[in-house]
Amino acid sequence: MSTRLSNDLYLPEPALPGQLLAQVDTPSLVLDLDVFETNLSVMQQWADRHGVALRPHAKAHKCPEVARRQMALGARGICCQKVSEALPFLQAGIRDIHISNEVVGAAKLALLAQIAVQADVSVCVDYMHNLQALAAAMAQAGARITVLVEVDVGQGRCGVVDDHDVLALARAAEAMQGLRFGGLQAYHGSVQHVRGHAERAARCAQAAARAAGYASLLRAHVITCERITGGGTGSVEFDAASGVYTELQAGSYAFMDGDYGANEWVGPLTFGTSLHLLSSVMSTPAAGRIILDAGLKSATIESGLPRIEGRPGLLYAAANDEHGIVRVDEGTAAPALGETLLLVLPHVDPAFNLHDNVVVLREGVVVDVWPIAARGLSR
Amino acid sequence: MSTRLSNDLYLPEPALPGQLLAQVDTPSLVLDLDVFETNLSVMQQWADRHGVALRPHAKAHKCPEVARRQMALGARGICCQKVSEALPFLQAGIRDIHISNEVVGAAKLALLAQIAVQADVSVCVDYMHNLQALAAAMAQAGARITVLVEVDVGQGRCGVVDDHDVLALARAAEAMQGLRFGGLQAYHGSVQHVRGHAERAARCAQAAARAAGYASLLRAHVITCERITGGGTGSVEFDAASGVYTELQAGSYAFMDGDYGANEWVGPLTFGTSLHLLSSVMSTPAAGRIILDAGLKSATIESGLPRIEGRPGLLYAAANDEHGIVRVDEGTAAPALGETLLLVLPHVDPAFNLHDNVVVLREGVVVDVWPIAARGLSR
Repeated sequence: MSTRLSNDLYLPEPALPGQLLAQVDTPSLVLDLDVFETNLSVMQQWADRHGVALRPHAKAHKCPEVARRQMALGARGICCQKVSEALPFLQAGIRDIHISNEVVGAAKLALLAQIAVQADVSVCVDYMHNLQALAAAMAQAGARITVLVEVDVGQGRCGVVDDHDVLALARAAEAMQGLRFGGLQAYHGSVQHVRGHAERAARCAQAAARAAGYASLLRAHVITCERITGGGTGSVEFDAASGVYTELQAGSYAFMDGDYGANEWVGPLTFGTSLHLLSSVMSTPAAGRIILDAGLKSATIESGLPRIEGRPGLLYAAANDEHGIVRVDEGTAAPALGETLLLVLPHVDPAFNLHDNVVVLREGVVVDVWPIAARGLSR
Repeated sequence: MSTRLSNDLYLPEPALPGQLLAQVDTPSLVLDLDVFETNLSVMQQWADRHGVALRPHAKAHKCPEVARRQMALGARGICCQKVSEALPFLQAGIRDIHISNEVVGAAKLALLAQIAVQADVSVCVDYMHNLQALAAAMAQAGARITVLVEVDVGQGRCGVVDDHDVLALARAAEAMQGLRFGGLQAYHGSVQHVRGHAERAARCAQAAARAAGYASLLRAHVITCERITGGGTGSVEFDAASGVYTELQAGSYAFMDGDYGANEWVGPLTFGTSLHLLSSVMSTPAAGRIILDAGLKSATIESGLPRIEGRPGLLYAAANDEHGIVRVDEGTAAPALGETLLLVLPHVDPAFNLHDNVVVLREGVVVDVWPIAARGLSR
């Protein structure tokens, strides 16, 4: 028996241009281009109308083609959450990148400095030692980077709260070679998921007021605060008009997901669900139960289970590693073996991170397959 | 301004041989080779002593180097959960592959047939139309595949329960060209997570008794049932000695995780935690709180939050996309900025699926970095 194999096997693309939705191999992320383009336009116009820059967050999609289209409509640049995540976007020609996070450790700072040699990069700091290490890394690479001091406006994650710390970090950033003080990051994640519209408005106003307070502090000490960056899909409606933020970081709006969809949206700003997970029926073992081929390795469930689009009577009840267990209500016709179903994802960001590409359709016909080139880049 | 960039930037490996654990870039999966090798030996010896074949599940790790080491110790072959998942293992020279799942749809069946041309492949069926499609795909490719009828022994996922269906599928598989009836798959996922040892034993015995019943049915109809495959890390202790199973599918035992660790293990068969997620402190914003650089994109949390190894007083309290929020008890010294911590993962299988490689250490020194080549292959 030969031990040498002629295994010239490879995995084909999940779809080819011209195919129909039901022909896409599953499980696959599928994007409705019309809804997606509308979402991009609506958000860009909202930012433009309020005189605020849009810097969409690339951690939502990790896909350079998405970022390219956002930039073409007028986005100032992109946000990344990690240094390594920025690499595919830089390679795609995007040169204005904000790392909306602290970057700690020699390997990461060295990579950040290399990126800063080639692009306009900003990064957050909330600790003096980190600022010093950042300056040293920039000096080593002959690079220059813009520093935003992260302030905690209520989230209780990263960021400083003491006036003294804000001033000390801003002054140090102004003074150190290779650094440039650019302003503040004031991001609040949890207010964006407050369900009621009025309560969300009130909580967002509180966060914006805190950000405004830190900006006043800087002005009172004659420190220029060029940018105040923050906001996300659940808060931009209020952030844009606040007069506080100069830059919006929203990302999920381009796709929407079950979690943001659960918010009460009564204002003028709304977005459609452009992204779904296409799954197919892989077993019909018993009355009242079908099994889908998409589980925990195709969609994360920390924000809830997927919802089956347009199919009342079908409930995605449990996710195993590679199986979705669906309950079929009495009186509902069960989908047939091989039939495809569209799932609304509870949380798009970690879902994009599970897939290597997204299949793009217009009016139900495949037009392209976009690589999710930053998938897995969490360092 | 030039739009052409000289961006010859790339992401370095997370570690180099000879480095120490604390020098590994984070977040990264790290494997303790001593514990891992002991786990592999203990399980292989357990299978050998009971005269049962071991066919470890590759969906746990998606890493050809892990499978190669399991085969070298005596494993009969591997399991994969999806067709595409088998490709990197085939390319690594592994020629005995069981797809422990139904495979539905033309694209998937065509790929399966191509793999079956080059390797000894078995697959599960639980529906006659699927069996016919499988036979047609094999005829098209000139391939031959072993068919196992999946029976539901209590999990309520895929698999048939009616005696009539078991017999009809077995006979049809025997009769169709390109197919060979190989026996039964009798897998029960949820009994493996029954916490109490005695209750787990009882529930596993019930599942095994059901499997034995289907095997008797086949024998009563003079149908050879060569293999009965099933079992996982939480049940092999009982399955091996049951006299029913001829083959064990366990996978997580090589690494162990928080969820299996929560079982009561009082029998002779125990495994150590060989896999951790290495994370580092990226912010120390306030007394009582530190922020780690590993969140939902580095570990899934559907089975619970990560636990911080060997650091009482530190509680991983919440996971955001790329942040882990850790509460520091009063009286506990907070780790410093940049300090690395080892996290015990609640569920190893989906965690491996988030990473491109695993850093391998012996006695705290990096000896290798293994690619997780089947990551993301869920089609």
